[in-house]
Amino acid sequence: MDNQTIHTLMNHRTIRDFSDRQLDQATVNTLLAAASQTATSMFMQQFSVISITESSLKHTFAEITGDTHAEKNGHLFIFIADQYRNYQIGQASGQSTKLLGEADRLLAAIYDASIAAESLTTAAESIGLGASYLGSILNEPQQLVDLLHLPTLTFPVFGVAVGYPVTIPEQKPRLPLTAIHFTNQYHLPDNYSQLLDNYDHELTDYYNQRSTNSRVETFRHNIMRQLAKSPKQRRTVLKVLRKQGFLLDEQ
Amino acid sequence: MDNQTIHTLMNHRTIRDFSDRQLDQATVNTLLAAASQTATSMFMQQFSVISITESSLKHTFAEITGDTHAEKNGHLFIFIADQYRNYQIGQASGQSTKLLGEADRLLAAIYDASIAAESLTTAAESIGLGASYLGSILNEPQQLVDLLHLPTLTFPVFGVAVGYPVTIPEQKPRLPLTAIHFTNQYHLPDNYSQLLDNYDHELTDYYNQRSTNSRVETFRHNIMRQLAKSPKQRRTVLKVLRKQGFLLDEQ
Repeated sequence: MDNQTIHTLMNHRTIRDFSDRQLDQATVNTLLAAASQTATSMFMQQFSVISITESSLKHTFAEITGDTHAEKNGHLFIFIADQYRNYQIGQASGQSTKLLGEADRLLAAIYDASIAAESLTTAAESIGLGASYLGSILNEPQQLVDLLHLPTLTFPVFGVAVGYPVTIPEQKPRLPLTAIHFTNQYHLPDNYSQLLDNYDHELTDYYNQRSTNSRVETFRHNIMRQLAKSPKQRRTVLKVLRKQGFLLDEQ
Repeated sequence: MDNQTIHTLMNHRTIRDFSDRQLDQATVNTLLAAASQTATSMFMQQFSVISITESSLKHTFAEITGDTHAEKNGHLFIFIADQYRNYQIGQASGQSTKLLGEADRLLAAIYDASIAAESLTTAAESIGLGASYLGSILNEPQQLVDLLHLPTLTFPVFGVAVGYPVTIPEQKPRLPLTAIHFTNQYHLPDNYSQLLDNYDHELTDYYNQRSTNSRVETFRHNIMRQLAKSPKQRRTVLKVLRKQGFLLDEQ
């Protein structure tokens, strides 16, 4: 079972280094059109995209997020969970908009933004472009909100940088399907620890053999590092979500 | 700019009615493999998939969610935001796992699950299968947690039903790109209201002309309906997220 689409999906890599060649407007529009056709929860179309094109803004974005790759090249799309557009529709008719701030509507907006981003990424990769998700956007959520002038009931979920790849790295192996797919109920395999041992070996081989940024690392190493520390401002994500009008249910 | 992948993405429709033909195991594995290769935040691989295959469980799922389509045919994948697998790694080494319950880690797990689901959906559509997202999973979050035996630090985000389509419906028009894409800062177009008028007309035409389930409806109608009411148990989403160990930052 193979076709161009499955080939594209199976060959996904994170690409961070882009050549100087810029995306033309037709390409940007094609990617956005693909994103806009994705499924949307309750047909509410609750996401937006902001392209950061101004170089001073890109520079500030890189400073805020600590993500210097994004500044140099590539087209920078920021995906926004957006209930503000629908809030405007409610307001114009004097309808209560209270439900838009509830937890399930925040989740729906995050789902919409995320699956749209993946369609954009897949479209990009299918025409030979490379892409990387910038989760670093959560390093400074309030500054991002200010930088992009985000109104109430919106939240910046992540960026996607898209450009012409300079090099294509080796593909990073993933956990085996037996560790992530279960039938009828949640149940980690009984040999999960053994399976992690094997996977850690596989990942160490990958890091040893790759041509750039070679290092000794396992999956467990990475998890332990992510458990040990996290940028301080990430602890403000919940506060900023509330400030934006979300998750007020229990207050 | 066109190829099979972009063609697949641009032709997305929600398919809810499937023939009796079941997905074979090779197809299920191909879809899961495509999903597993997607980007993952901080390389933490924080999502899982549960296939509901047992018919009594499918029946209970349909009762809980009110989604009767899912019961009859099609393969039912439930996507889980999953920090439990990494919690196990931390526990095994005596490392604090506190960070896994923070808001940013919940978001990362939801992103991972969502973009993996979109890759699975795109792979399915590329080989002629149809799919629908089942957001109805949020109608009864605690019952879903119980039904699937979900451990701490997991949450069921949505289902994806995949099968062989009986009919292919017309494609539902989306908001124009000018309403969802901005440059450098968030800014609804000055003619947003006019643009909504046009879009409402376009959508009414679509509903009038489509062969099944024809009705008079606009985008604004739908939004007003979604603002007016929502299933009662959806108000428990935040509580269930907390019970699962998430968003405890401020408690």
